[in-house]
Amino acid sequence: MEKVIDFDPMNMEKDANYGEITQDRIADLIRIVGENGVFTDRLEMQGYAHDETPLVPLYYPQVVVKPRDVPTIQKILALADQHRIPVVPRGAGTGIAGGSTPVLGGIVLSLERLDRILEVDEDNFVAVVEAGVSLARLRDEVEPRGLCYPLHPGEMSATMGGTVNTNAGGMNAVKYGVTRHNILGLEVVLPDGSIFSSGGKYVKCTSGYDLTQLIIGSEGTLAVVTKVLCKLIRKLPRREVLYVPFNDLQNAIDAVPEILKLNQYPIGLEFIEKDIIDIVEKHTGREVPYHQYDAFLMIFMEGESEDEILNYFSGVEEICKRHGACAAMIPGSEGAKRLLVESREKFFSAIKEYAPVESIDIVVPRSEIARFIKAAKLIARGYAIPVIAYGHAGDGNVHLHPQCVNMSEAEWHEKLPLLTREIFEIGVAFGGAISGEHGVGFAKKKYLPLQLDEVQLNTMRAIKRAFDPNNILNPGKIF
Amino acid sequence: MEKVIDFDPMNMEKDANYGEITQDRIADLIRIVGENGVFTDRLEMQGYAHDETPLVPLYYPQVVVKPRDVPTIQKILALADQHRIPVVPRGAGTGIAGGSTPVLGGIVLSLERLDRILEVDEDNFVAVVEAGVSLARLRDEVEPRGLCYPLHPGEMSATMGGTVNTNAGGMNAVKYGVTRHNILGLEVVLPDGSIFSSGGKYVKCTSGYDLTQLIIGSEGTLAVVTKVLCKLIRKLPRREVLYVPFNDLQNAIDAVPEILKLNQYPIGLEFIEKDIIDIVEKHTGREVPYHQYDAFLMIFMEGESEDEILNYFSGVEEICKRHGACAAMIPGSEGAKRLLVESREKFFSAIKEYAPVESIDIVVPRSEIARFIKAAKLIARGYAIPVIAYGHAGDGNVHLHPQCVNMSEAEWHEKLPLLTREIFEIGVAFGGAISGEHGVGFAKKKYLPLQLDEVQLNTMRAIKRAFDPNNILNPGKIF
Repeated sequence: MEKVIDFDPMNMEKDANYGEITQDRIADLIRIVGENGVFTDRLEMQGYAHDETPLVPLYYPQVVVKPRDVPTIQKILALADQHRIPVVPRGAGTGIAGGSTPVLGGIVLSLERLDRILEVDEDNFVAVVEAGVSLARLRDEVEPRGLCYPLHPGEMSATMGGTVNTNAGGMNAVKYGVTRHNILGLEVVLPDGSIFSSGGKYVKCTSGYDLTQLIIGSEGTLAVVTKVLCKLIRKLPRREVLYVPFNDLQNAIDAVPEILKLNQYPIGLEFIEKDIIDIVEKHTGREVPYHQYDAFLMIFMEGESEDEILNYFSGVEEICKRHGACAAMIPGSEGAKRLLVESREKFFSAIKEYAPVESIDIVVPRSEIARFIKAAKLIARGYAIPVIAYGHAGDGNVHLHPQCVNMSEAEWHEKLPLLTREIFEIGVAFGGAISGEHGVGFAKKKYLPLQLDEVQLNTMRAIKRAFDPNNILNPGKIF
Repeated sequence: MEKVIDFDPMNMEKDANYGEITQDRIADLIRIVGENGVFTDRLEMQGYAHDETPLVPLYYPQVVVKPRDVPTIQKILALADQHRIPVVPRGAGTGIAGGSTPVLGGIVLSLERLDRILEVDEDNFVAVVEAGVSLARLRDEVEPRGLCYPLHPGEMSATMGGTVNTNAGGMNAVKYGVTRHNILGLEVVLPDGSIFSSGGKYVKCTSGYDLTQLIIGSEGTLAVVTKVLCKLIRKLPRREVLYVPFNDLQNAIDAVPEILKLNQYPIGLEFIEKDIIDIVEKHTGREVPYHQYDAFLMIFMEGESEDEILNYFSGVEEICKRHGACAAMIPGSEGAKRLLVESREKFFSAIKEYAPVESIDIVVPRSEIARFIKAAKLIARGYAIPVIAYGHAGDGNVHLHPQCVNMSEAEWHEKLPLLTREIFEIGVAFGGAISGEHGVGFAKKKYLPLQLDEVQLNTMRAIKRAFDPNNILNPGKIF
């Protein structure tokens, strides 16, 4: 079922200079990839015409290719570069900024068949995987060895290549950083089909420009990531969550710097507000503890033993109480723990069930979270659009969800871009950035100039031209 | 006193297209920077004709400028770009790869007068400093507030701008990573004099290419760093060192992965060999404990209390003993602790006193350290050149010092480049990189192709051209 949405979020015209995908080109692709790796049927391509971005129409490619190895990818790119055909690299398509959506048509280059875990090096704490390996598969491979890859974005079906391209973040970033901090090297194919491997099994390196870091977060516009070297860490045996209700979000946020001055770092430090609790209760049909309070911190901690974690939590509780916390609870049963964690993790899927909803991913300095949310809600009130906020108190990453309730969809779609723009403006004024972990893709590209000036944008465009002079790789994205 | 060394490590010809620094240009610079900020006297420029790289002759600039603010830097660069004059940005000149040496003459742009600490934000754990602020000054500013910037390379007189440009590493990298992992944003001036600020007071960001990360480690070839936003962490009150002698370096190295699987990370995990102990004893006139053994691990740990650290050390000791450690000692007095730490930290200055010495900075996968050192020493034996090795067992960063003993300097200088090349070749064959933390500068640039292929080097050159089409910024470096 194709969504038809009567606004074009891009207002983008197709570049007249791109080459057409003729039957000759399809025949070329079949010669390169093999018959069972080339798809032109509209029904088969539907899943590749979108990612998980809300409110976006389908953009069909002309062809989807699913190569099994890197030399094939090199040939596909060389062909596309020669004929100037857009190529959109794609992992699992779980992004929510439209990064892997083929907005200019062309070739969708799916990495799904590059799914081998090539090496788990336990001495150096490094895994080497192909780009199409999902986070869940990597977890299943390394956890039995007592190791883990610490990145934990919402969606574990995301691929390693995809998370590299969006510099995915998630809930463990307080302690472990984002994708950028956990990747040691890459193998990439350039638009002309040439290939290189950057980095290696080491953390320290200063041997020329760090191409690994440049490609991380470049959303498939510079090169196609085919292989990923990532850090592994020891999987600690115990994990607990502390749940702390407050009467006011500002009090909760004020406790955060002190919590982060304790000797150990929590793996996650999340905040939610009451309106989320309400939705989760509606969704699960179960009562969430302390649901009468306005704001909550959830502190996730891991350790060797329950005692060690409880000892840490007692320090956290003491700080929270000094900042006006009304209680502090460690769920006693696994069921209660799961309910709490899910009220945070599964919230986005819950809220989507009730009404159309937009997803805004923004980052502000940690200390500004509460003031920023207050300002954003004040703006939203002017549009009569309710906005739900939650996010990562430990790192300043806030997710805002404007909902379509008590308003026609048409009116909501008209107001939404204006509201979104004002929210980004205020976020940038607070010293923030317009995307913390989802990326810019095409869904947020018109807002990027709110954060980056022309000097910076032109520098990025010059880098893009240096890598991809024919602009074939994921065109129409970021800037 | 000018060193005259009868080989040219670069074999580099001056680019005929660079503009001359005429009296008119000097007059322009005086107009821009002010009379007391422009130096052309040879004696005054001598300190700017070199950094701390061993075995390199003096390369004089035509002029040294010392601006006090960023708009002045913008004007200097615009002038240089217009007339195509090389500009070499310079911090404290403590580098040891020749990164800030004006090998093609031109303008040395010293950042030493941009030395203000602009902000210490205790809520967001961020410091904002000008590029010329030294690590020592930042430490003195933040430590009284219970905070620290975790980077600890050998030389605390290095500037923040300099450490950003070399992506400096140091002894704390096991726990805290290198410069790259501790920088949140930069203000930079581009070669044409335009300016931008990247990043901000947040860890998570995926809003366009990460220019911060690209500029870190670019050795002043892409932009002049003028301001730095860096992470701060809480300064833990106690710090101790555990000293563990082994009969064999391989045993010591084999213990490392297990140590890193303990719940807590040490801040440093260093290895040294017996020959270093001998030199330190000669240098200090004091006996180092367990000096009869062949290899040593030094594990640096910080914590809330001595008990906490001792508890951690007992776990480390148990692992080391299982791997054949002969003993494990925590120095009882502050004096004994200092002697031990200095035998590691001050070793390079000690060794330089006895004979000419080269400094090779290489990184290999952690598990390969012992095998790599064995191979490197075997190669060195073929040249009859003794090589001393030590380094960071926790991150695979090895420092090798070929010494000139029992051989004429002329013979040594003839053999050294051949030996160095072989050592780099074997390091790369072990999966390593030719510089872990010192950079490439011009001293190591001829070896970079051992690690990076033409595709990678050409990609870097294309990025360089995108930033600096006239090639005025620190030309002749890296590639």
